[in-house]
Amino acid sequence: MARIALDAMGGDFAPQATVAGALLALRELDPAHSVLLVGRTAVVEAQLAELLGGEYADLAGRRDRLTIVEAPDVIEMSDKPTVALKGSKANSSMVVGLRLQTEGKADAFVSAGNTGAQMAASTVLLKLHAGLKRPAIATLFPTARQVVVVLDAGANVDCSADELVDFARLGSVYAEDILGRDNPCVGLLSIGEEAEKGNAVVKEANQLLSAAGELNFQGNVEGRDIPKGESDRGPIDVVVCDGFVGNVLLKFYESIAPVLLGLVAKGAGLDRAQLMGAFKHLDYSSYGGAPLLGVRGVSIISHGKSSPVAIKNAVLVALRAVETRMNDHIGRRLAESHGATEAA
Amino acid sequence: MARIALDAMGGDFAPQATVAGALLALRELDPAHSVLLVGRTAVVEAQLAELLGGEYADLAGRRDRLTIVEAPDVIEMSDKPTVALKGSKANSSMVVGLRLQTEGKADAFVSAGNTGAQMAASTVLLKLHAGLKRPAIATLFPTARQVVVVLDAGANVDCSADELVDFARLGSVYAEDILGRDNPCVGLLSIGEEAEKGNAVVKEANQLLSAAGELNFQGNVEGRDIPKGESDRGPIDVVVCDGFVGNVLLKFYESIAPVLLGLVAKGAGLDRAQLMGAFKHLDYSSYGGAPLLGVRGVSIISHGKSSPVAIKNAVLVALRAVETRMNDHIGRRLAESHGATEAA
Repeated sequence: MARIALDAMGGDFAPQATVAGALLALRELDPAHSVLLVGRTAVVEAQLAELLGGEYADLAGRRDRLTIVEAPDVIEMSDKPTVALKGSKANSSMVVGLRLQTEGKADAFVSAGNTGAQMAASTVLLKLHAGLKRPAIATLFPTARQVVVVLDAGANVDCSADELVDFARLGSVYAEDILGRDNPCVGLLSIGEEAEKGNAVVKEANQLLSAAGELNFQGNVEGRDIPKGESDRGPIDVVVCDGFVGNVLLKFYESIAPVLLGLVAKGAGLDRAQLMGAFKHLDYSSYGGAPLLGVRGVSIISHGKSSPVAIKNAVLVALRAVETRMNDHIGRRLAESHGATEAA
Repeated sequence: MARIALDAMGGDFAPQATVAGALLALRELDPAHSVLLVGRTAVVEAQLAELLGGEYADLAGRRDRLTIVEAPDVIEMSDKPTVALKGSKANSSMVVGLRLQTEGKADAFVSAGNTGAQMAASTVLLKLHAGLKRPAIATLFPTARQVVVVLDAGANVDCSADELVDFARLGSVYAEDILGRDNPCVGLLSIGEEAEKGNAVVKEANQLLSAAGELNFQGNVEGRDIPKGESDRGPIDVVVCDGFVGNVLLKFYESIAPVLLGLVAKGAGLDRAQLMGAFKHLDYSSYGGAPLLGVRGVSIISHGKSSPVAIKNAVLVALRAVETRMNDHIGRRLAESHGATEAA
């Protein structure tokens, strides 16, 4: 039985998309699970009444599996991350929703709101696993083969080699628990497949990962390997990079598909909408949210532009993290690794 | 009158593609210009005879505008970059071809051979403009609008903020001279448009570029802006990044188009070949080579897999660099900028 807290006020299309996403989740979730909608009670109630009276009328009978948790403050997308932790917005849906985990009232938190604020509040409230300085954002890149986990995607812009090694550990557990990959293949993003290629930090990280031997480390991978989902040495499950490179790549990837689609439609004299279906495979919303890894708990970051389907999928990702006990696995993996590193 | 030296032995398809590329260039070049084919004379002669006796028979009358320059050694794609400067391959087509410029016998050099060797040999033989530590590789990214210059694309993996500022200067002259852009718009690649977003080096580079005021600096751009060819502040001509990020992005970009094409073809039930035409816009060969900027001369790096058309286009890029006196402009720009920096 899992209790997923959802930030009802977070995201460009909240509360409509978030409440609708919660209802969509109820359609798929086993009755043992519940969703907690965190936000301004009156606003959420009104939205719920509207949806249950219309498009989602079939779910009226499951209303009892939704609980509304009052949070009077709302963090705007334009607010500075630290606002989440300050007096003026001390009872935001972000903070109240995360605190449910520390109070034992929820098992996971999902938000499509201000990403910086979610990172800051998750780090302070849930706290980090021992040995970590910052959490990492794990994102999924659709490829010609399977989806690939790329991390960090923006939480850590100046990384040490040790931090990159921790990203490899976090991403490996994520690929195993959430994606169901067995002994995930980990690649280190660089500018050549040889171990001696890369910048100073990456070269050091390659040595550390090779020496550690604890992960299924496949050596360096290159930019060209990501869209293919494989390097010359085989398939890739996890790509490790610092948050600067990961964020640039993620945004580049999100932007290139529509641009190429437009070019194809124009060049081949085709209808843009006709081609849209082909890109479903690349639709981020179908992969749900990006977990913030390294915190002691579950905090799932959804895209600000999340649709109800994207919110629903993020709830399902959160559920899978709870069910597989991903957080415990991460804690154990890090404790073992860091213990081994110190003993070595 | 420009004399373009071409490495006849460099590239995966040499000498067939290189010699054919030289012949294609003759079709387009004004008769005042000539091409010097550098390599093993017997090999080049044989290739030339074959092509002029067949597919390129119409060019037999222009044979006199081609000169063969003997170079007994060949640097392989798998050779270490430093081999170019060592005794065992002292008379490679790479070194002999570049030396033609220092001897006043050629105005530019083009190679599709070993990129690392070309960088090393160009730096040592042509030397760098004052104030530079390394040359930068400028590449062109096709976008939804105009093509955008992205540099550095791999020559400099650990960069200081001062080096990023020099890339902005180099890229700006390149966009002006080779692409004909007036007062090119320069963006600094980062993870947010605000000046305070980025890693430590990028944040410092933003301050330096903003303070310098000598370029048409538009502030930070993000990964999403490159495929669009514009940020929220307008069109982009030049994107500045370190060689690690640039190389990862370049390879990612080269790899994503065929992957997306395959997905579109499959998803929309279309013929792959039918869609190919739409991607012409993204075909790297149509943009010729990537200049190595910062050396005192002209050294154009072509893709190892260059076709005859790609080689021809690289020769045309070299010609344009000679005709616009790009190298002098770079020298002047750097001298003025560095002088101003020191005086400030």
